[in-house]
Amino acid sequence: MKKVAFLGGGSFGTSLAILLANNGNKVSIYDRDINVVKDINENRRNDKYIKNLLIPHDVTAYNNIDLAIKDAEFIVLSVPSHVIRDISRQLKNKISKEVIIISIAKGIEEGTNLRLSEVIKEELPQNDIVILSGPSHAEEVSLNIPTTVVVSSENMDKAKIVQDLFMNPAFRVYTNEDLVGVEIGGAVKNIIALAAGVCDGLGYGDNTKAALMTRGMAEIVRIGLRLGGKAETFLGLTGMGDLIVTCTSIHSRNRRAGYLIGTGKTTDEAIKEVGMVVEGIKACRAFYELKEKLDVEMPITDILYKILFKDVDVKEAVSHLMEREKKSEIY
Amino acid sequence: MKKVAFLGGGSFGTSLAILLANNGNKVSIYDRDINVVKDINENRRNDKYIKNLLIPHDVTAYNNIDLAIKDAEFIVLSVPSHVIRDISRQLKNKISKEVIIISIAKGIEEGTNLRLSEVIKEELPQNDIVILSGPSHAEEVSLNIPTTVVVSSENMDKAKIVQDLFMNPAFRVYTNEDLVGVEIGGAVKNIIALAAGVCDGLGYGDNTKAALMTRGMAEIVRIGLRLGGKAETFLGLTGMGDLIVTCTSIHSRNRRAGYLIGTGKTTDEAIKEVGMVVEGIKACRAFYELKEKLDVEMPITDILYKILFKDVDVKEAVSHLMEREKKSEIY
Repeated sequence: MKKVAFLGGGSFGTSLAILLANNGNKVSIYDRDINVVKDINENRRNDKYIKNLLIPHDVTAYNNIDLAIKDAEFIVLSVPSHVIRDISRQLKNKISKEVIIISIAKGIEEGTNLRLSEVIKEELPQNDIVILSGPSHAEEVSLNIPTTVVVSSENMDKAKIVQDLFMNPAFRVYTNEDLVGVEIGGAVKNIIALAAGVCDGLGYGDNTKAALMTRGMAEIVRIGLRLGGKAETFLGLTGMGDLIVTCTSIHSRNRRAGYLIGTGKTTDEAIKEVGMVVEGIKACRAFYELKEKLDVEMPITDILYKILFKDVDVKEAVSHLMEREKKSEIY
Repeated sequence: MKKVAFLGGGSFGTSLAILLANNGNKVSIYDRDINVVKDINENRRNDKYIKNLLIPHDVTAYNNIDLAIKDAEFIVLSVPSHVIRDISRQLKNKISKEVIIISIAKGIEEGTNLRLSEVIKEELPQNDIVILSGPSHAEEVSLNIPTTVVVSSENMDKAKIVQDLFMNPAFRVYTNEDLVGVEIGGAVKNIIALAAGVCDGLGYGDNTKAALMTRGMAEIVRIGLRLGGKAETFLGLTGMGDLIVTCTSIHSRNRRAGYLIGTGKTTDEAIKEVGMVVEGIKACRAFYELKEKLDVEMPITDILYKILFKDVDVKEAVSHLMEREKKSEIY
């Protein structure tokens, strides 16, 4: 039995907390929202983030971060990407160097364009950091639907310990040494999922979306290789696998936000209606900057950026993408 | 204006015939079913294969193959893969060597394990053969929903002529020189789509299916490279793109057949209920043989073969796939 603390009581964090409790561990969840903490402790529910889920009694929620992390051997950062630095900073001088930090967020830091493991390392240089990523919608993980994910780290011995921690018959954990690839794939696929949602919102079909996802995969590979990731990783669970699930599942917030934009809503209206953080919108801004700086061809990211932030008309942008001159597929 | 003959009045053939007529060509369709011919000529419909579609008057159907191919500059073989040899043989000594043969079927020949362009070449050695493939459900092509496909040939000059023939604002045609890759990707993806359907039929979720598709992609790449195709092709429209659309679309017969098998129907019952040819079932048998002969690892094809033809229980087979020992993602 291990002691594991989750910082952030969102849908994915909560479903993984339940999974670890069911694996026989002692689990705590910190959330800044006192109502979430009360709902978990008193009603064994977390209706704000994930409905119809019964949380076992071995999960305890806290509104105080110090109480939540007390004696924890593992700390899971289950917050959106833009909160990763702040939450890591809050752990400074409070945890021993043996504590393993696990990040389940997907994105890169706006402004610095650092990967999230790099952000955490800047704040907690003494701790080992393990990234967990892959096609794993919280709603399905919580129902024990068979799911596969990948863990990666600069210290693969620690990644294997995290593999053991999470692994069970319905939750297969693979290891992958390509930390850069795992993190970049997870971040960029949210941009393509947003674009896929736009495509759905405009009323296009499965043929169109499959084409968009295929060209989106090419963008993930191009920027990913340029940043030092490996092609095999982008073709694996944290690249292609996660891209598929995010572009096609009804559970994806990124796809949902894109869908709303495709039907004519503004970016702000879409964010408001989704009601939770839409990582793809932030990722789009960050990777637009990166691709410009590094001169990498990312036409979908480019057009989505203009739709999201430059008021370019959605329909015009998409027809522009379809009506380029005829060419060879491989270039 | 070109004269184009379609041999086979199925759903994809009919939707492409309409597309070519709308592109300004004179189009004929041969079908052996007199009722299909009458329905097209008299009612401007083809209700047996594709509902709610109005066929323009520049498309004429024939029950006689000689009349259909008269003066044709292009002959499109729009029949299932197992009929390709027979229909090609019927053209022997009837067409000039200038006629370009276009194949839109996906599969390999059972018994010989030849690619379809190889089968056609054996029967019509003097003619140039162009393969058209990609994520293109007939139901959507017929509605002018934006679609992208690839053409390939041993003679790329002829592929470019076919590109010009089909291209329009809603139907983008790319060229790709990797004929082996284009044909193998299109054939193997039907096996994975069947397996994805089984996964859906068993009640698994999007996480599970994304994992299956990702591992399925690895199988396509492994057997495809072994047979001489290129990795870039498998990652493109005729590989990944077509895999996505076939595994996720409601329009896919392969997925639908798999779904029925996942819910407990036998292979024969599923074929009967789908009511049209299920290419993935034949492809599974052919590629099972090929992988055994060439010693290529294809665990999904292997398990599906046992479910389809060896009466292995579906649930047992799938749980076996999920509960292998923990490992690294890349191997």
